[in-house]
Amino acid sequence: MRIALALGGLLLASNVLAQQAPVAAESPEYIKGKETLARVTGAAGSKTVENLQDIAPELGRWVVEWGYGQVLSRPQLDLRSRELATVAALTALGHAQPQLRAHINGALNVGCKPEEVVEVIMQMAAYAGFPAALNGIAAAKEVFAERGVKVNTTP
Amino acid sequence: MRIALALGGLLLASNVLAQQAPVAAESPEYIKGKETLARVTGAAGSKTVENLQDIAPELGRWVVEWGYGQVLSRPQLDLRSRELATVAALTALGHAQPQLRAHINGALNVGCKPEEVVEVIMQMAAYAGFPAALNGIAAAKEVFAERGVKVNTTP
Amino acid sequence: MRIALALGGLLLASNVLAQQAPVAAESPEYIKGKETLARVTGAAGSKTVENLQDIAPELGRWVVEWGYGQVLSRPQLDLRSRELATVAALTALGHAQPQLRAHINGALNVGCKPEEVVEVIMQMAAYAGFPAALNGIAAAKEVFAERGVKVNTTP
Amino acid sequence: MRIALALGGLLLASNVLAQQAPVAAESPEYIKGKETLARVTGAAGSKTVENLQDIAPELGRWVVEWGYGQVLSRPQLDLRSRELATVAALTALGHAQPQLRAHINGALNVGCKPEEVVEVIMQMAAYAGFPAALNGIAAAKEVFAERGVKVNTTP
Amino acid sequence: MRIALALGGLLLASNVLAQQAPVAAESPEYIKGKETLARVTGAAGSKTVENLQDIAPELGRWVVEWGYGQVLSRPQLDLRSRELATVAALTALGHAQPQLRAHINGALNVGCKPEEVVEVIMQMAAYAGFPAALNGIAAAKEVFAERGVKVNTTP
Amino acid sequence: MRIALALGGLLLASNVLAQQAPVAAESPEYIKGKETLARVTGAAGSKTVENLQDIAPELGRWVVEWGYGQVLSRPQLDLRSRELATVAALTALGHAQPQLRAHINGALNVGCKPEEVVEVIMQMAAYAGFPAALNGIAAAKEVFAERGVKVNTTP
Repeated sequence: MRIALALGGLLLASNVLAQQAPVAAESPEYIKGKETLARVTGAAGSKTVENLQDIAPELGRWVVEWGYGQVLSRPQLDLRSRELATVAALTALGHAQPQLRAHINGALNVGCKPEEVVEVIMQMAAYAGFPAALNGIAAAKEVFAERGVKVNTTP
Repeated sequence: MRIALALGGLLLASNVLAQQAPVAAESPEYIKGKETLARVTGAAGSKTVENLQDIAPELGRWVVEWGYGQVLSRPQLDLRSRELATVAALTALGHAQPQLRAHINGALNVGCKPEEVVEVIMQMAAYAGFPAALNGIAAAKEVFAERGVKVNTTP
Repeated sequence: MRIALALGGLLLASNVLAQQAPVAAESPEYIKGKETLARVTGAAGSKTVENLQDIAPELGRWVVEWGYGQVLSRPQLDLRSRELATVAALTALGHAQPQLRAHINGALNVGCKPEEVVEVIMQMAAYAGFPAALNGIAAAKEVFAERGVKVNTTP
Repeated sequence: MRIALALGGLLLASNVLAQQAPVAAESPEYIKGKETLARVTGAAGSKTVENLQDIAPELGRWVVEWGYGQVLSRPQLDLRSRELATVAALTALGHAQPQLRAHINGALNVGCKPEEVVEVIMQMAAYAGFPAALNGIAAAKEVFAERGVKVNTTP
Repeated sequence: MRIALALGGLLLASNVLAQQAPVAAESPEYIKGKETLARVTGAAGSKTVENLQDIAPELGRWVVEWGYGQVLSRPQLDLRSRELATVAALTALGHAQPQLRAHINGALNVGCKPEEVVEVIMQMAAYAGFPAALNGIAAAKEVFAERGVKVNTTP
Repeated sequence: MRIALALGGLLLASNVLAQQAPVAAESPEYIKGKETLARVTGAAGSKTVENLQDIAPELGRWVVEWGYGQVLSRPQLDLRSRELATVAALTALGHAQPQLRAHINGALNVGCKPEEVVEVIMQMAAYAGFPAALNGIAAAKEVFAERGVKVNTTP
């Protein structure tokens, strides 16, 4: 039943994506972008795009068509390395907590182990300082709690 | 001959590392740190540490013992993913060009392909904007020119 | 009735401004600053200054006398361009959400159309990345909801 | 004669743009992007794109097709306001001096007065501090010297 | 009674520190770090370390052993100057509010007067802009309210 | 002879300060600002202000009258603590190297020991990462070389 609701949410979001910009939606990059967005973010990414419909729909199209359809869909680097790199960068920048949580989810969705996500955040202590790393770990703790993920902390 | 000189430089740097902080140098983390530093940065890392001797030698010890001996030496994540993540983070931060160049070198030294380094920098256009990505690519261009590295740009 | 209360709040705030630093309040820059502050922020700016009275009243005086009385009151650039520029800069910096909301309000108060405010935030996707732009739009969405502002999203 | 050389440079750059990505170059956004890029940056923008050909040509295509063809070409905001906003944002960020110089040029190219460019940079003193504003003014001083632009500093 | 509870919390936290990493806990730096951590942060720092146990215990060890045991424990600079410097830096960075609150507490704990803490935050208006300073003061206001600290605002 | 020249430069700069904004120059804050500026920066600060005369003279006035005459001249905190805090903040921000060098000089000018300046920069490794600290030390190394300052690095 919960699965049905989740799927329903996904379908709803997909419909929104399909309706929002009829011409753009047909471009190969947009179609590719929707696939990569779903693979990386599950239903959360389409929800973000949906939330932009009444204020900045074009920004949503850019996220899908350019961000996911072009930048993240290039074959030169695997999605696992890409998501770890994004988690590292957003941890270091420090001012994008909602997006950091989304990409911690993204990293897990594309096959990173929780221990790898934790590790790349910890590593930022050396490149951006303890505050950035501590706030990154706090974000990971929230995401892991929501997903029921346990971290193996044996050294 | 050039190899001999390069090795000479490395030995000189190693001697400095060995002399600088006799007690600390014996800690297992320091020894491990020297190994990882050499693997990631070649002779450039020890040069950085050497340059700190007359002003902030302890900062150099921290880089070796904590940064490389502890943070980067943990087995939970491979050095290739670590270096790509660092390149991404330094590109996004934008204010650490010398360190960005060092870690572009580092990424290549631990086995990343030039195309992967370029890719993770390009990806930062989506997360930190074009200026950050363009300046990151400029740094890569310098490093690749110094090393005689060619990038395969076939899509 | 609600109007009366709002005006009351404004008067109260004005009184605080008048009382807080009797001598400084007489400087031409301070008087000019109060006018520009009121024009840009309505009652919200004086509320911010009021909140500083028990901890850092001089910081409040600097905001009024220097920030609004000197920087923003110079005739070389119109307030509309100034507020769009500030919205852009705070969106790009990413760590000043309360001030970003204040200046989204400020932009509307000095005559910017909601579509222009949205546009300059969207533009930051290219210069500071999607996370900055998405969090900027989220701030605009909150402000627009409070003011009952609708955005025309027809391309 | 100088005009002929400048035009020659522009044509050369245009040829590079035309050759680099034959298919993408035909998209309406790419064509529009080339026009907006030329209008904002003169020949400098195509030079930047040209410099990316041997390392990250797709990043160059993104700059033209998405950055200039989509983000900056939307009619919701005039190019003058857009360039002032970009100058403000890059001044505040502080780590993108080459791009700041490019957009100070861009602001002048689309019709901003030098006094307006100076003004929006000065304004950043209040939002990002004196160091950011002083470094922004230093960038403007370089650009103005190259173009032989004089600023009217009468209050 | 309240004192007893507070001490109880401290003891509990100390036990966690003692248990978490039996071998590392014995290093002189770790022992020194625990002392400095307690002096600067009271029980709050050990709580932060405790919160890391199930997700990134090594990050907690680094905070204690390296951050407090080495960096902050060096005799070259007194803790009062160190905490004022950290409050200034975190105010300027702007994206580390939880750590800023911790170090405002830390500054008071090591003997800074509330007026000095306020002053160094206000000073950041000149180096990082009003938004950073205003958000820093908001953090100080929260901390002072929790501790029942009053600021003497007589000029 | 060298002293005479240096004094001449100072007098020249002072004349510029006196001429640039006849009315403002008479304000008590401006006079106070000139004194504090000279005490903190020697002749370098007036040189910075002088360089602004042909492009943004008002920004120079703000630096003197507000930055030095008001913010830095308040008696609540000694100049030594203020300069160490500024060096810490500019090191952490990482994008203001010319100002960082100016305030490393400033810290020495108001009586900080070179070892204290080095220490507060090293401390930033924990709060803003190694790249920020390493670039801060590089700035200190330049300044110390210009002044012929030696650092005592005995632990």
